[in-house]
Amino acid sequence: MTKMNYTRDNLWQIEEVGFDSRYLGKTESIMALGNGYLGSRSATEERYPTEQRDTFVAGTFNKFAENEVSELPNVPDLWWMDFIINGEHFSLEKGIVSHFSKRLNLKNGELIREFDWAFGTIELHFIFRRFVSKKRRHYLSSFVTIENLTEAAVNIQIRSGIDGQVTNNGSQHFYEGEKGLVDGKYIQMMPQTNESQIDFVFTAGHRIKAENVRERIEMGRRQIFMNYFFDLPAKGTAAIEKRMSIYTSIDNDHSDREVTAIRQRAITEMEALEDISFDELLQESAEKWNEMWQKHPIEIDTENFEDQLAIHFAKYHLHIMTPAHDERMNIGAKGLSGEGYKGHTFWDTEVFMLPYFNFTHPDIAKSLVTYRYLGLDGAHKKATSNGYEGAQYPWEAANPSDGEVTPVWGAADIVTGQSTKIWSGFIEQHITSDVAFGVKQYIDVTGDKEFAEQKAYEILFDTAKFWGSRLEYNAENDYYEIKDVIGPDEYKEHINNNAYTNYTAHWNVTYALALAKELKRSQPELFNHLNEKLGLDAVLDSLAEKVDKIFLPQPTEEGIIPQDDSYLEKKTIDLTKYKSADSVDGLFHDYNLEQVNQMQITKQADVLLLLYLFEGLFPHEMKLKNFEYYEPRTTHDSSLSLSTHAILSADLGKLDESYEFFKKARNIDMGEYMKSSDDGIHAASLGGIWQMIVFGYGGVRMIDGQLRIEPHLPKAWKRLTYGFDYHGESIDVVVTKESVELTKEDNGNNVMFVSNGETYSLKNKLLITLEEV
Amino acid sequence: MTKMNYTRDNLWQIEEVGFDSRYLGKTESIMALGNGYLGSRSATEERYPTEQRDTFVAGTFNKFAENEVSELPNVPDLWWMDFIINGEHFSLEKGIVSHFSKRLNLKNGELIREFDWAFGTIELHFIFRRFVSKKRRHYLSSFVTIENLTEAAVNIQIRSGIDGQVTNNGSQHFYEGEKGLVDGKYIQMMPQTNESQIDFVFTAGHRIKAENVRERIEMGRRQIFMNYFFDLPAKGTAAIEKRMSIYTSIDNDHSDREVTAIRQRAITEMEALEDISFDELLQESAEKWNEMWQKHPIEIDTENFEDQLAIHFAKYHLHIMTPAHDERMNIGAKGLSGEGYKGHTFWDTEVFMLPYFNFTHPDIAKSLVTYRYLGLDGAHKKATSNGYEGAQYPWEAANPSDGEVTPVWGAADIVTGQSTKIWSGFIEQHITSDVAFGVKQYIDVTGDKEFAEQKAYEILFDTAKFWGSRLEYNAENDYYEIKDVIGPDEYKEHINNNAYTNYTAHWNVTYALALAKELKRSQPELFNHLNEKLGLDAVLDSLAEKVDKIFLPQPTEEGIIPQDDSYLEKKTIDLTKYKSADSVDGLFHDYNLEQVNQMQITKQADVLLLLYLFEGLFPHEMKLKNFEYYEPRTTHDSSLSLSTHAILSADLGKLDESYEFFKKARNIDMGEYMKSSDDGIHAASLGGIWQMIVFGYGGVRMIDGQLRIEPHLPKAWKRLTYGFDYHGESIDVVVTKESVELTKEDNGNNVMFVSNGETYSLKNKLLITLEEV
Repeated sequence: MTKMNYTRDNLWQIEEVGFDSRYLGKTESIMALGNGYLGSRSATEERYPTEQRDTFVAGTFNKFAENEVSELPNVPDLWWMDFIINGEHFSLEKGIVSHFSKRLNLKNGELIREFDWAFGTIELHFIFRRFVSKKRRHYLSSFVTIENLTEAAVNIQIRSGIDGQVTNNGSQHFYEGEKGLVDGKYIQMMPQTNESQIDFVFTAGHRIKAENVRERIEMGRRQIFMNYFFDLPAKGTAAIEKRMSIYTSIDNDHSDREVTAIRQRAITEMEALEDISFDELLQESAEKWNEMWQKHPIEIDTENFEDQLAIHFAKYHLHIMTPAHDERMNIGAKGLSGEGYKGHTFWDTEVFMLPYFNFTHPDIAKSLVTYRYLGLDGAHKKATSNGYEGAQYPWEAANPSDGEVTPVWGAADIVTGQSTKIWSGFIEQHITSDVAFGVKQYIDVTGDKEFAEQKAYEILFDTAKFWGSRLEYNAENDYYEIKDVIGPDEYKEHINNNAYTNYTAHWNVTYALALAKELKRSQPELFNHLNEKLGLDAVLDSLAEKVDKIFLPQPTEEGIIPQDDSYLEKKTIDLTKYKSADSVDGLFHDYNLEQVNQMQITKQADVLLLLYLFEGLFPHEMKLKNFEYYEPRTTHDSSLSLSTHAILSADLGKLDESYEFFKKARNIDMGEYMKSSDDGIHAASLGGIWQMIVFGYGGVRMIDGQLRIEPHLPKAWKRLTYGFDYHGESIDVVVTKESVELTKEDNGNNVMFVSNGETYSLKNKLLITLEEV
Repeated sequence: MTKMNYTRDNLWQIEEVGFDSRYLGKTESIMALGNGYLGSRSATEERYPTEQRDTFVAGTFNKFAENEVSELPNVPDLWWMDFIINGEHFSLEKGIVSHFSKRLNLKNGELIREFDWAFGTIELHFIFRRFVSKKRRHYLSSFVTIENLTEAAVNIQIRSGIDGQVTNNGSQHFYEGEKGLVDGKYIQMMPQTNESQIDFVFTAGHRIKAENVRERIEMGRRQIFMNYFFDLPAKGTAAIEKRMSIYTSIDNDHSDREVTAIRQRAITEMEALEDISFDELLQESAEKWNEMWQKHPIEIDTENFEDQLAIHFAKYHLHIMTPAHDERMNIGAKGLSGEGYKGHTFWDTEVFMLPYFNFTHPDIAKSLVTYRYLGLDGAHKKATSNGYEGAQYPWEAANPSDGEVTPVWGAADIVTGQSTKIWSGFIEQHITSDVAFGVKQYIDVTGDKEFAEQKAYEILFDTAKFWGSRLEYNAENDYYEIKDVIGPDEYKEHINNNAYTNYTAHWNVTYALALAKELKRSQPELFNHLNEKLGLDAVLDSLAEKVDKIFLPQPTEEGIIPQDDSYLEKKTIDLTKYKSADSVDGLFHDYNLEQVNQMQITKQADVLLLLYLFEGLFPHEMKLKNFEYYEPRTTHDSSLSLSTHAILSADLGKLDESYEFFKKARNIDMGEYMKSSDDGIHAASLGGIWQMIVFGYGGVRMIDGQLRIEPHLPKAWKRLTYGFDYHGESIDVVVTKESVELTKEDNGNNVMFVSNGETYSLKNKLLITLEEV
């Protein structure tokens, strides 16, 4: 038996108590370690058939086969250790395990696993500690203590090394490469990806605290490891420390591209750390973590302590998964915590995670939007191959220049037994306006003029140019429409005029026209430069002709905005059964995608997401009607759904309902369902946790270039403290039921914002009294 | 706890009693299933981290990477089944296992695994049966019975399908390919090897015997499987039958090369078997087995019943590993039972296994020697690349035309920690005369004139031509020598004038000269044909000049034939410690190969093998001296060593000593050491078992074209019955301590043979009285 255990006493700790090999995936994902450069599932040292061992290095994409897409390769496993106790392989499936605890310290990134293990007459106490250094991006450390509780000595063999036999579910991305022992002390393995030809250098060194240790090196295919043999006396304690590093030939923190030079660097740097202890290495990493935690800490005064824990959890994961160090890289939909979605970047970044970085770490946000700028080539490639102009962003992105990398075939259709075609890469086109929206949010929140002029405007024009070429003229109705798409609701394929897609495309075009007008006036030189590069004059003329004729689905007499041309005519079924299920799969055990396509079943916020992101588009009353129409038809089968519902319902004054969504949303990974996270963490939902708190209850929003702050706390919260960066100013906010207090350094600058229709100017401190809801 | 269990009551059964996951490799290998077309380790249905799941299809070599060598790819796993009992994954590492028995019926190739499993309140009895059809080469069948011994119903989920996530220790040879459900009934997977581009079609269908079964298909990456859910009532029994087939695009029993056609064929043939039960399929396979067992059965009248079991064991394995159906293929050094040696063919075939087929299944022997004829191109390639002429056979062979495929790097050197270079592919050159010797034995034993004229003579000339170019003139001594080689003793690298190599090369050349002389006389047309093809005139002139000057290491004053130029000068250490160890590794935990190179340590019969294969070369007394000199210096670290020692010591009249070697040799795989066979069965040692019995104690030998029969039974044997084919005649032999009785059909032909210096002619029946030794 196993379960998650959270306590009021430690709001920085997630813990699993009890061991059950059926549910290894849960903590492998939610206790993943990383530092943005590398990420690793917290698979146990010893092995189980039900485990999923994965370590990834951000941006090291490789294509296993010509007809597959690039993915992040699962690199050789460094954590691996086998313990052979009196000749018997140690495994928690054998013997009696007690006091099992696996826990992650979110504050300093230390993972601890601890238990007693009784097997026959042997009784041992194990403590496993490990972390990935936040200070030294290439470094991983592991420290294992074994205490012999038996009355007799036990014989122990430890096999520990580097295992390159791991794969991405059977696909091997690496050529084996060289391996060897260096200076009689460090083992190394140097595999190379088979298509992208990235060289990797893995190094590991051991220190043993035990008496009379015999050691022996062994190599197998794709494996190199050390064997340590010793007797552990009765009541004695032994320890093994393992220091590991990973370097690649695409690292941007050193200029070595040749394997031999990288090998040498790895050894030199490993040697330089010889005199620093495990605890010291952990401490310096913790200090780096602390710098992050100091930045706009969020405090929630509530009896429901899991709410506070959740934001620690979310921020921890947002930081371990984000390759902040390299603008050629972006965040994967499962971060670096699983093979799900192959390490690819989706709209999840712009719509769900970027807001956190915009408002809290604008430097990281800049790196993320720069990735999209570097992606223009790939976006041109995609547009051209589809017969369009401008920049059509890929639904799934790997290396920025790759263009579209969405796989074409997915899981089995339960009716036909054949693979289902994945259409998203072809027709889920709203990603292009999502990227434009994200870039616009970034420049609005940060006021980063340099990025705007050098990169953002180009993206905003180039995406509008795409939409201009994408619009299809409908002569009968004399309007431009967008047919054959998938909207945010992926249960509707090949639909026409998805509201979200059409409205956001319309916004993208409208904004480009306004921007052009403004630039011509204020920065004619910049405009001319972009005009030359993108042929803007012709593009803008065409867009100006089309923009007012873009078809925007209008509300029905009942005030319902049709999700697409046909949605409202489809039949409705009772979804209660599926909405209460633990697993997303429920619906698809009964229907296949084609059948779901024919019903009013929505996977995730679609129209409602539009109402949230563009809140001025429709009046309050109409938003309410649409919320009440669509929510019961929504299965929330995507982890991107609940947070949007939580925020929108908070906006609509449904605070109790909102808080129910909040609790479900923060439990997507942290919750008690032990199969939730097998394929990896739900990256977007973690951005969603921050958004629910700061946007939803903290009331912050960036709307049409204007900052808005309208807090409203749920009943269970007494007080919410948060902060954010805005145009280079750092603002602290304390919200209670009665008031909101804003503070910034009195540096002569004023921050303008609106709240409930009033405009405010924050110079230093401001207290606004809230009406009770 | 686990151990092998053999009983006097069943001389056709090898059995493991008790389960221990440390030792899965033992029965995976020694209970491997196969039919020569495909072979499979007997890995359990459910999975363990310590297992090695391998299934191979003979001859489907693929090269994972440019700098690796071709190997037999581990194909997608068909045996896989997971059992989830009341929500808990079934594993023998959990709960209490009793009455565990895993047993292989050598007579019909059926594998049975059976046990009681108690977990909490649940108690189940499992029976797993499976076989690979000997009648239908593409077919595998599995039948699992679960009996619920509990007083309550248990909920059972069975996941069973095709798993393409398996690799060769991390190297993935297959592109994923298509997969799907056909006719709602059969699951299929169609991967392709990434370099050799061989298409595979895997098909599986299930039948369930249970009430109210729900089913659901699922696909994962490289996986397709069915889920069956049902409740098994108290005291109830359920069963699942799984029928599987494997086809490839290089099969020679159908002409389909396109995947779609092969898929269709697989389905059609699967459907055609619908009405035949598991037991009927097993029965028809057993009948095919029986045909084999009828051919020259060996019976040993002895108290040591394991001797009888061993020959059943050896023959079973020799047949499941030998691709008798396709002359483009040969036997791997581990058969089809493990990844060791990558499925490659060595001299093991000619020197250790071919004799069995020559004397028992000449049709199979013909296929094996034809493989070498097809290998001439590859042998030319190797000779040319090394600057030689003629046919230089590869030390390791895969596809016949590939030439040399020995990997260049091996295991870690314990002193330097670096990979050890494998020199065999470069300088272990005796393989070329071994192949010539094997071909000569084949034509001598079978009298296959057609093969001799069309293929064998060409090999014999072409190999002699190689040796002619290989010999190095030593002006100082005015002789031709062979420097920088490895002999059969692989612990001596880069030595000069290895006795085995020089003598066999000399034989190869001498025989070619004699053959040329004979052909010119008796078949001038054939000679002219070969002369044109191989430029024989010039070659033979040159060989005639050199032959008498080939340096043949001469006995010292003490009568010891030097293994090579420097062996006798090297230091000697006491090997007792290493010879008694269970594992080959012992010596190399203390010394590296370079150090062993500098000592009088011999891995396996080298000079002694020469004395055995060319028994007329040296007088009895000298052989005895050499035996007594070399055996104590031999670690028998190669499984090719013991059988040679057993036979040679029997020849030398040391029957008690011989029988000790025999018992050790027959225990190489069958013995109680549970780690013996992890990498696969020791193919050559199985040929050795047959040779020890028929050549060693039965006294049969083919020497210089003459049949010799000189039996001598060990003390423990009362009577030995065996038989063999010779020049198309089938001869039965019964040996006792007193006499040998030979019988053949009285068809007018006489078989001439010698025995103890006398020449005999066997027309029908012959009784020879033996002197007591």
